[in-house]
Amino acid sequence: METRPGGRSARVREAVRQATLIELAENGYSGLTVDAVASRSGVHKTTVYRRWGNAEGLIADALELASSEPWPLPDTGSLQGDLRGIVELVRSGFADPTSGPIAAAFVSAAVQSSGPAQALHAFFASRHEQAAPIVERAIARGEIPADTDAAELIRTAVGPIYYRLFITHEPVTVRDAERAADAAFAAARAGVLHP
Amino acid sequence: METRPGGRSARVREAVRQATLIELAENGYSGLTVDAVASRSGVHKTTVYRRWGNAEGLIADALELASSEPWPLPDTGSLQGDLRGIVELVRSGFADPTSGPIAAAFVSAAVQSSGPAQALHAFFASRHEQAAPIVERAIARGEIPADTDAAELIRTAVGPIYYRLFITHEPVTVRDAERAADAAFAAARAGVLHP
Repeated sequence: METRPGGRSARVREAVRQATLIELAENGYSGLTVDAVASRSGVHKTTVYRRWGNAEGLIADALELASSEPWPLPDTGSLQGDLRGIVELVRSGFADPTSGPIAAAFVSAAVQSSGPAQALHAFFASRHEQAAPIVERAIARGEIPADTDAAELIRTAVGPIYYRLFITHEPVTVRDAERAADAAFAAARAGVLHP
Repeated sequence: METRPGGRSARVREAVRQATLIELAENGYSGLTVDAVASRSGVHKTTVYRRWGNAEGLIADALELASSEPWPLPDTGSLQGDLRGIVELVRSGFADPTSGPIAAAFVSAAVQSSGPAQALHAFFASRHEQAAPIVERAIARGEIPADTDAAELIRTAVGPIYYRLFITHEPVTVRDAERAADAAFAAARAGVLHP
C-alpha cells in the first residue's frame, strides 16, 4: 500500500479511516461493515474490499494510524502530577461521547479477534514507549529509583481504570483516576516497579 | 425459577450450566447457541429457550451461579503473601487450558452485551466482598492504615493483569503477577487506597 503523506493513496486511506471511526462510534464493532464504510467514505466498495478485506482489516488499519499519533502527555514538574494527568486522559477519553465509543469498540474488537488484538497490542506498545520521558524526568529529579520500568509504571497507573471499564463494568470517577495514579506513584517510590 | 438445592429444577439448571461452560470453552461466546447447550445438556430445547432465552441468558445464569461459589483465598500470615496468592490465582486461572477460555469468554460476552456485563459486575462485586477479611486481618496486624478500602486494594492488585490480558494483549508471567501484588501492597502501605 502506498502511503506517502498527501498522495492519493494516503487521502483514500484517511477517508476510509474517518468513515471507520464514525461507523464504530455509531454502531460499534459488531455493526461495522465494509459496505457502510465504503458508502460513507465515498471510496469504491471494490477498493475497500481489496485493500482492507473486512471489518477486522479496517480496525487494524485505523489503529495503526492511531499508533503514530502523539499522546498529549503532561509535564507538570512532578511524577505524581504527570501520572494523574495520564490517568485522567484515559478516564476522560472513555467518558467522552465521541472518542469513548470508538476506543471501547477497539477494545471489544480486540477481545473478539486476533487481527485487532495485534493492532491494539502495537498501539499500546507505542503509548508505553511515548511515556518513557516522564519516567526519565522523574528519575533525573531523584523521585524514583533509576531502574523503574516505564511501561510497568503506566500499566500500574491505568490498569485499575481499564479493569473498572471492561472487566467489572463499574463507573470511573475523577477521584478513582487520581487514586490509581497515586497508587502507581507509591509503588514506583517503593522501588517495586523494576523489570 | 425454582432453584431449591437438589430439586429437579436445580439439577436442570446445573446441567444447563455445565453444558454452557463446556460450549464456551470450546467455541467461545460467539459460538454459544441455545441449541448446542440443549443438545449437550440433555435438557429439552423448548425448556432452555423458555428459561434462558438466548446466549446472553445462559452466560448471565452461569455467572450468577459462579458468584455464589467461594474464592479459595490464601491466608499466608502477611498481606504481601496474601496479595501475591490472589494475583497468582487470577494469572494461573486464565493460563489454565480449561478455566482460561471460559473466563475469557465471560469477559468477551460482557464487553459485547449488557446482560452478561451486569452479571459479570455482580460476580466481581462478590469477589471483592469475599476479599475483605484479608484486608481486615492486615489492618489488625498493623500492616496498613485502618481506612484501607478492600475492593480498591483488589482492583489495584489485579488491574495490571487484566490490562495485559484483555487490553494490551501482552503475556503475563508469574513475575508480572508478583510485581502487581507488590505494587498494590506498597500503595496500601503508603495510605493511598482509602475510599
